[in-house]
Amino acid sequence: MKQLYFEDLVVGTEYTSRGRTITDADIRLFIGATGDDHPHHTDAEYCKNHPVFERPCAQGVLVLSVSDTFFAYEIGFNLAHSLNYGHDKIRYLQPVYDGDTVHSVMRIAACEPKDATWGRVVVECNVINQKGQLVLVNHQVILAGRRPSA
Amino acid sequence: MKQLYFEDLVVGTEYTSRGRTITDADIRLFIGATGDDHPHHTDAEYCKNHPVFERPCAQGVLVLSVSDTFFAYEIGFNLAHSLNYGHDKIRYLQPVYDGDTVHSVMRIAACEPKDATWGRVVVECNVINQKGQLVLVNHQVILAGRRPSA
Amino acid sequence: MKQLYFEDLVVGTEYTSRGRTITDADIRLFIGATGDDHPHHTDAEYCKNHPVFERPCAQGVLVLSVSDTFFAYEIGFNLAHSLNYGHDKIRYLQPVYDGDTVHSVMRIAACEPKDATWGRVVVECNVINQKGQLVLVNHQVILAGRRPSA
Amino acid sequence: MKQLYFEDLVVGTEYTSRGRTITDADIRLFIGATGDDHPHHTDAEYCKNHPVFERPCAQGVLVLSVSDTFFAYEIGFNLAHSLNYGHDKIRYLQPVYDGDTVHSVMRIAACEPKDATWGRVVVECNVINQKGQLVLVNHQVILAGRRPSA
Amino acid sequence: MKQLYFEDLVVGTEYTSRGRTITDADIRLFIGATGDDHPHHTDAEYCKNHPVFERPCAQGVLVLSVSDTFFAYEIGFNLAHSLNYGHDKIRYLQPVYDGDTVHSVMRIAACEPKDATWGRVVVECNVINQKGQLVLVNHQVILAGRRPSA
Amino acid sequence: MKQLYFEDLVVGTEYTSRGRTITDADIRLFIGATGDDHPHHTDAEYCKNHPVFERPCAQGVLVLSVSDTFFAYEIGFNLAHSLNYGHDKIRYLQPVYDGDTVHSVMRIAACEPKDATWGRVVVECNVINQKGQLVLVNHQVILAGRRPSA
Repeated sequence: MKQLYFEDLVVGTEYTSRGRTITDADIRLFIGATGDDHPHHTDAEYCKNHPVFERPCAQGVLVLSVSDTFFAYEIGFNLAHSLNYGHDKIRYLQPVYDGDTVHSVMRIAACEPKDATWGRVVVECNVINQKGQLVLVNHQVILAGRRPSA
Repeated sequence: MKQLYFEDLVVGTEYTSRGRTITDADIRLFIGATGDDHPHHTDAEYCKNHPVFERPCAQGVLVLSVSDTFFAYEIGFNLAHSLNYGHDKIRYLQPVYDGDTVHSVMRIAACEPKDATWGRVVVECNVINQKGQLVLVNHQVILAGRRPSA
Repeated sequence: MKQLYFEDLVVGTEYTSRGRTITDADIRLFIGATGDDHPHHTDAEYCKNHPVFERPCAQGVLVLSVSDTFFAYEIGFNLAHSLNYGHDKIRYLQPVYDGDTVHSVMRIAACEPKDATWGRVVVECNVINQKGQLVLVNHQVILAGRRPSA
Repeated sequence: MKQLYFEDLVVGTEYTSRGRTITDADIRLFIGATGDDHPHHTDAEYCKNHPVFERPCAQGVLVLSVSDTFFAYEIGFNLAHSLNYGHDKIRYLQPVYDGDTVHSVMRIAACEPKDATWGRVVVECNVINQKGQLVLVNHQVILAGRRPSA
Repeated sequence: MKQLYFEDLVVGTEYTSRGRTITDADIRLFIGATGDDHPHHTDAEYCKNHPVFERPCAQGVLVLSVSDTFFAYEIGFNLAHSLNYGHDKIRYLQPVYDGDTVHSVMRIAACEPKDATWGRVVVECNVINQKGQLVLVNHQVILAGRRPSA
Repeated sequence: MKQLYFEDLVVGTEYTSRGRTITDADIRLFIGATGDDHPHHTDAEYCKNHPVFERPCAQGVLVLSVSDTFFAYEIGFNLAHSLNYGHDKIRYLQPVYDGDTVHSVMRIAACEPKDATWGRVVVECNVINQKGQLVLVNHQVILAGRRPSA
């Protein structure tokens, strides 16, 4: 891993992530980790009569979590130190079905020093499916470690 | 499942969820579903030298996802129709380690009709660990199906 | 969770559960938890020549376990205290293939006080697939906590 | 795999299986496959106040499923053809906690021809933990393929 | 389990394993256990433009691991004592896609006593898919426990 | 992902990977993906009497697979195109137990053009645990895509 610091991040920089095909196995592993087995995600018969879903779709937070991983691969893993601070706004815009492939276009929206150790960074993540539809907006906030002074 | 509608939810109502002990197995299943294997969550040697974590902790979005399940068990599963709309604000306040047990105290903060089919509901979820520490704040926004008129 | 007691359960009451689509991912997770990777469940070529199965099917005990969860969602989770006592009779009647959706129709068949703390409850669970076929009969026996006297 | 037939099984034969240590990861994988995340299995704080359990224990059907695998390893995998018919009686006698190691002592209790293709076999499985306690009784019924006549 | 010893293994003996259909769920579980979520295995859009793969394929080491299990079922599980020593040569010859069924043809290539306790055994494993294509060659080396002298 | 080509890799370059703590959950997920539930990895009572293992250890191929991921993170993920070719030699030197943390020191040992599209690269991977013990040697062979000529 490279050793980037808060000072290396620049407002306005854009990153495009790799993609990931979301599958039914992800949905089931996610149930194991969280217990979320709502019929939206597990019951094909129920979904046939649902006003919005055609068939079982991924848990929204699963797609959000994949968005988080995209962020980690492009930015987070390269930071010497980082902490998840939170999210300012998340919107679920389209269901993601078994077999859909998503990737993320990310833009650094704000960088502010917080204290001597950490800087606060806002990254706007737009998750897009293989049809080009925006499926998730995630305004992610992290703390990035500041470069130690010489 | 019961068949509650938007009209049955009342601003100010509080709900206390069951609890869940977060374990290393959850962290690993979550990696399978999302790919997020940051050393924060998987590398005990790395964490020994980390400025904040003592040892590997759960992914923040995993704890958020468990919070989502707590919401589903107390409110979401009882609604005739619902959709995840998003989150207005999420803050990660304390790490959750293997073996920590969390539960959620939820309060309906806002209920607004959106259109003839759906109402918009904001639920403030405070996730608390076995020591009584607030570990996560999650302002969750859902759409709840409106009661069909007679 | 609500706080029902043995005294709240009534012989003859029927419950219809939500559904769950059983998928290949369930079969594989189940192998991880149990080691049961019989070719009936994992080997598509072997199943082509099998006298009964057309293709890999779910482990019988996996379907039984899902039946147990249906019971928990409708009855077990609502009891203040409960213990699994056993099963009086289980019959596997039809294979459940990847993609089949099952639900359970349950009927309380017997309620007998056991001692001051527990009552014994027999629930006949009929698990039915999306074609209306009965795939599993499970006569489940639980102990339900008795209501504390005032 | 060897090619045993119904005719090769002898009433009274005893088999002792290998063992398996049941762990928290098994419990979580099982949740993924079935959705059964009852606080008995996932909530350490809840279990502290439970009248029977000291701490989270394995789902009863998980232990039953492991018993099924023990049967498969010793008998089922060696049969040319077999089908799960059901269980005549299952009793959960002791909780199995994370870290307990169980094995099974099995005895063929009955063998009856059913038709020209299948024979019906009852196997009494006693699952025992590392302390020598009987934790589960499982009277398993299978159909074993009959030897083709020359 | 039977109790075979090094002395029971004979150079030139061939074994044909059962088969296993490799599925997307295996690929995802494998990510959980190892972190290997290369787009070769998870990103259907990426694979469309790949010079070799048509669609996501199993991790090579996953297929190797299944080959190892085939070895265990036919030989390793039957040994009183065994240790994995290593592999002399492994070649990945064809991608294995979701839904492909593989089995292994194994031949004992060498047996040499190592010391009073262990013998060294080389097994050439050829893993073949449902089309008859050789997908993996694995020259596996194990230590097998020697028969205790009387 | 960066876009490195065969021509960018230099014999003798060394890479040190991040670490990963191997846990029981990895062992169980690995069973789900492969079926390998040998008592070496799952039966604590069996291991107490084993001549080498003190307690259940990770499957050798699981450690090998983690070594593969370390390679991917440092080298493989940065290549524009790559294929797993095989391994020339793998040796399992020490058991890896639940809770051990391993990392890999890798050295490019050979780079040879294969044809106009691919070059053959041998990487010697030494996997080391938290005590500094060498647990696995893996001579990995990959094909790296050659830089398109202008």
